Amino acid sequence: MGNCCDRAASFFGPQKNTNVRVGLPAVCFVWQIAMVVLFGVFIRYDEESDTHWVEFRRENNITSDIENDFYFRYPSFQDVHVMIFVGFGFLMTFLKRYSYGGVGFNFLIAAFGLQWALLMQGWFHSLNPETGKITIGVESLINADFCCAGSLIAFGALLGKVSPVQTLVVALFGVTLFAVEEYIILDLLHCRDAGGSMVIHCFGGYYGLAISWVLYRPNLHLSKRFHGAVYHSDLFAMIGTLYLWMYWPSFNSAITDHGDGQHRTAINTYLALASSVLTTVAISSMSKKGGKLDMVHIQNATLAGGVAMGTAAEFMIQPYGALIVGFCVGIISTFGYLFVTPFLEKYLKLQDTCGVHNLHAVPGMLGGFIGAITAAAATEAVYGAEGLRNTFDFEGEFENRTPGTQGGFQAAGTCVSIAFGLVGGVCVGFILRFPIWADPGDDNCFDDEVYWELPEDEEIVPP
Amino acid sequence: MGNCCDRAASFFGPQKNTNVRVGLPAVCFVWQIAMVVLFGVFIRYDEESDTHWVEFRRENNITSDIENDFYFRYPSFQDVHVMIFVGFGFLMTFLKRYSYGGVGFNFLIAAFGLQWALLMQGWFHSLNPETGKITIGVESLINADFCCAGSLIAFGALLGKVSPVQTLVVALFGVTLFAVEEYIILDLLHCRDAGGSMVIHCFGGYYGLAISWVLYRPNLHLSKRFHGAVYHSDLFAMIGTLYLWMYWPSFNSAITDHGDGQHRTAINTYLALASSVLTTVAISSMSKKGGKLDMVHIQNATLAGGVAMGTAAEFMIQPYGALIVGFCVGIISTFGYLFVTPFLEKYLKLQDTCGVHNLHAVPGMLGGFIGAITAAAATEAVYGAEGLRNTFDFEGEFENRTPGTQGGFQAAGTCVSIAFGLVGGVCVGFILRFPIWADPGDDNCFDDEVYWELPEDEEIVPP
Amino acid sequence: MGNCCDRAASFFGPQKNTNVRVGLPAVCFVWQIAMVVLFGVFIRYDEESDTHWVEFRRENNITSDIENDFYFRYPSFQDVHVMIFVGFGFLMTFLKRYSYGGVGFNFLIAAFGLQWALLMQGWFHSLNPETGKITIGVESLINADFCCAGSLIAFGALLGKVSPVQTLVVALFGVTLFAVEEYIILDLLHCRDAGGSMVIHCFGGYYGLAISWVLYRPNLHLSKRFHGAVYHSDLFAMIGTLYLWMYWPSFNSAITDHGDGQHRTAINTYLALASSVLTTVAISSMSKKGGKLDMVHIQNATLAGGVAMGTAAEFMIQPYGALIVGFCVGIISTFGYLFVTPFLEKYLKLQDTCGVHNLHAVPGMLGGFIGAITAAAATEAVYGAEGLRNTFDFEGEFENRTPGTQGGFQAAGTCVSIAFGLVGGVCVGFILRFPIWADPGDDNCFDDEVYWELPEDEEIVPP
Repeated sequence: MGNCCDRAASFFGPQKNTNVRVGLPAVCFVWQIAMVVLFGVFIRYDEESDTHWVEFRRENNITSDIENDFYFRYPSFQDVHVMIFVGFGFLMTFLKRYSYGGVGFNFLIAAFGLQWALLMQGWFHSLNPETGKITIGVESLINADFCCAGSLIAFGALLGKVSPVQTLVVALFGVTLFAVEEYIILDLLHCRDAGGSMVIHCFGGYYGLAISWVLYRPNLHLSKRFHGAVYHSDLFAMIGTLYLWMYWPSFNSAITDHGDGQHRTAINTYLALASSVLTTVAISSMSKKGGKLDMVHIQNATLAGGVAMGTAAEFMIQPYGALIVGFCVGIISTFGYLFVTPFLEKYLKLQDTCGVHNLHAVPGMLGGFIGAITAAAATEAVYGAEGLRNTFDFEGEFENRTPGTQGGFQAAGTCVSIAFGLVGGVCVGFILRFPIWADPGDDNCFDDEVYWELPEDEEIVPP
Repeated sequence: MGNCCDRAASFFGPQKNTNVRVGLPAVCFVWQIAMVVLFGVFIRYDEESDTHWVEFRRENNITSDIENDFYFRYPSFQDVHVMIFVGFGFLMTFLKRYSYGGVGFNFLIAAFGLQWALLMQGWFHSLNPETGKITIGVESLINADFCCAGSLIAFGALLGKVSPVQTLVVALFGVTLFAVEEYIILDLLHCRDAGGSMVIHCFGGYYGLAISWVLYRPNLHLSKRFHGAVYHSDLFAMIGTLYLWMYWPSFNSAITDHGDGQHRTAINTYLALASSVLTTVAISSMSKKGGKLDMVHIQNATLAGGVAMGTAAEFMIQPYGALIVGFCVGIISTFGYLFVTPFLEKYLKLQDTCGVHNLHAVPGMLGGFIGAITAAAATEAVYGAEGLRNTFDFEGEFENRTPGTQGGFQAAGTCVSIAFGLVGGVCVGFILRFPIWADPGDDNCFDDEVYWELPEDEEIVPP
Repeated sequence: MGNCCDRAASFFGPQKNTNVRVGLPAVCFVWQIAMVVLFGVFIRYDEESDTHWVEFRRENNITSDIENDFYFRYPSFQDVHVMIFVGFGFLMTFLKRYSYGGVGFNFLIAAFGLQWALLMQGWFHSLNPETGKITIGVESLINADFCCAGSLIAFGALLGKVSPVQTLVVALFGVTLFAVEEYIILDLLHCRDAGGSMVIHCFGGYYGLAISWVLYRPNLHLSKRFHGAVYHSDLFAMIGTLYLWMYWPSFNSAITDHGDGQHRTAINTYLALASSVLTTVAISSMSKKGGKLDMVHIQNATLAGGVAMGTAAEFMIQPYGALIVGFCVGIISTFGYLFVTPFLEKYLKLQDTCGVHNLHAVPGMLGGFIGAITAAAATEAVYGAEGLRNTFDFEGEFENRTPGTQGGFQAAGTCVSIAFGLVGGVCVGFILRFPIWADPGDDNCFDDEVYWELPEDEEIVPP
């Protein structure tokens, strides 16, 4: 194998230049300075986080500080924050020699992206035309974390095959595209998508897949010595899995309506996730000799229930409805890992390191359509007149929209998110093909050695 | 050693059949479909998670959405959820080659059990006789997690010696027995047991021990090459320990009374846990040459204070009372690991992998009696007339119960939980002895190889 | 190398006595008994955690249980609790053979210190002169955790070079000094320091550095075989890093004013931390051949933004101000790891295992001065008259203090914390030099073997 690598290396010419000593600091500094300037121009505290809150309270007859949105949303925000950094981060540590890259670049992308997200989402959603300022509060922080999630999902498809500079480019365009599609879906189409089946998972999944398709590496097999887990790397990944799994009810309910909205969303998500676990275990066991379980399935497909409930969880889908959703997507997602990922790689030339196709793209798309069906099936008998209006926000210019119409728009929203993901991903993929990004060679993928100082005495996996 | 194993294997005949390829998927599918049907028939949202909440609010003059129970309990619920999946899960990763089984089967049992728990607890506690429906909210989710905890504790005693199908049987009966004993203890005897010293820990501990006793394996020494930790597996287990330790105040206070009840319970638990740490360290250090600390003690006995405060934490036990409880159970639990576990194995033929006897059974039983004493000692001088009534719920048919009587009932409740654990465990143990469950052979215990696809290049521990 | 060690050992005479079998249990028992007694004499529940809350509510016209401080602060408390035990604990697991000591002694120190902190802080801040009692609630628990943080930071400088008994001495004096300097800074000087840049980080950092300076080991190179990370130990440390990073907004906002105070503090801290990540990555990459990232920087300097915002985060520093602070301290902290730590070791004879100089001492000091400047720059135009009064607590005897004066006092407070750290640390250092503490020999540092029972079959790192 050593020989083969050497020969391959000489065949493909000298080693690729993976030096990021100029590029990475330059991007970080330029970007961070730009953020300081733009925040200086645009971003201020909103009325609930400003010292004038005490006056605002009095003017609006708010009886207690506990009515500040902070107390409605901060616990959920922290859960979401853990999902973004520990959940996504550790989920990507499963490779034997790319754990630093998994958790470290995830950290970098998210810290980079959330600042840009505050600006982008602010311009689209909360720019005050009079003052020219965006005001932020705890809900903005949650939305910024959500916005990063799209790019982190895309990173999952690219894991181990891109340079840190490329990940930042993915995040930069990812956040930008996200803000635009979110504006179209939530504001123009007036869809409901609290947990982001459409705007986060479906978009992020297809965005990553499209980039990965453009960046196809025919000789990736040269890195196959690094392409797998070891016993303890899979355990680290389970930390990520469990935090995503446990906190998903907070993810879906973080920005839903106060009161019953948050409450119901959490319950539905909790049930769908539990159901996914059982069907994932069943399919995983059926697929292997002796009924042995596969850690890849347990780490990923168990989460599909949360993804697929991202839109419908705030509706009256009923507890058994949530169980059915989890039941089906657990099966679909596990089948995806068994059959679709190998198929995509072989026939579509699409390398998807973490299988985001099966965990995000497809369950997210299904989640969008499940949301559409649930919305279309809503009736005043079940929701109550007031409840129906509150849940779907049938107010202002949308006052006369019916649940049936709403269902149609929800389905349209899902298509918008797929389109944005695919088209945006292909464009970004071509940008990333310029030979300036210091990405690793085909024989150097999935290896932390390239971008990290590794502990000296650690044994390197033999080639 | 290798030879010895081979000889042993030939002596005991052909290898046991550990194929779960039919059984495990069948159980999962049948079960999950049953859950969908039963949820469809029985389970609906309660008034705080239903879209009619807005009307409910108006009718009951509730001034703000923040009064929704979600905001009182959701942060505690998420902490409990982390304890169940990461806390219990990672605590059981300490074995060198059974970490997947520890965290993975824990995940499976809990996801399986919590659905059944919602039904069982619903039938006993919140079935509306008119509509025939159970309504659920965030408190139901907490209770379902609690209910699973009993079976997870039992799993701790069986860790490494049972098949995944058997763990599901343990959970099925465990949840059922739990719901019955909980109904007897909380409703019929009108005990208070917010953190579940009796209903969770004492029951779960004795349930697991009784099963393990029936499943005694005289030749377990054949697996001793796997029976121990490695450096990093003990670190993974510390993740579990710390999350259990940190969030135990939330565990005990999750379903106590709003206001001072939750507040006081959290304080008492926090103090008892801190006290346990110091006495555990002291005894652990005294017991070894050179005063070296033993990770088994640090991982487990430090938690005993939380278990033992499960009943009394909501009473006015006073901060110093909490410290005393932690002080004593830290010592008792560590002594248990040093002397009682070896004694049980040698003389009672009882193999207790995680030492649940010392962490759950005994501290839970003590916690029940500590609760009884604290209740019996309650006076109006300390609690105030109204406080006494609120704390012990002396209302309705229990209006005239005195603290002394309450103490007696609390003690009786503890005995009920022990009886349910022991008798139920023996019965379930006999069910698990049928030769149909694909459990591992005596030379194959504590080995993930049996039920998991392991990473190929990983070195197997030499026999 | 083996020979060299042997020769060194014979040169330095017989191996040091590291037996703690008498000392450690004795300290733990005596201490814990003292705590029980002192808690019995002094500590009671406050009016929000006592059963008389229901009467208190009625008397004070509090309309709902949700107004209990528990619901304002408990989620933040739990986040802080995680930072203390998992955050600090796992951050210190990065050494290849001192992970047990890192996470285990951290656990011991914190459990030991928080009890003493409740007493010390209680005597200074909430002793009721009439009853002679200290009353505690959830805010007391947060403050106790904060108080331990100072000693845990100091432990970071000493990691691997002290015995467990010595760590308890560090905590005993650390908590005592903390309570005094906190009283001077917060009460006498009337500074604001919600997140503790001054009272926690600056004090803790210099306290640890001063102790380490006194305990200088000229032959520490004899332990250099243990002084470094392995691949997975650095991943465990990333768990610590991420939990500290994610929950730092809760740390800084845990005890700020209800309403806008907590809200604004969380936003500012979130932004400063994100900004730190980018400049840390930039400097780390610039400093190494090929632009490779160094895990030490990523694990530590990314957190500097949270430290430096500990004082100013509750002021109206504006979002861009927070970004600028994070920008600068990310750079400063990374430079510290690159240049200052080696300089300190070489020229000042100061061995700082975790680099607390760069993560706590300097960013904490800067945070103090940033707070001073921000306070001095406060105007009624920005804060509103009422907001200014609330934010800086210009009430009672401080009614007429101006922001300018406040700024001066804030700066003075920073100096007080440095002085307490340095002087206190030197004194404690000399106490720790007595040859009675069973500390490890120079060739035995950074080795868990000395104080822990290690798994038998684990390969020991060859000398």
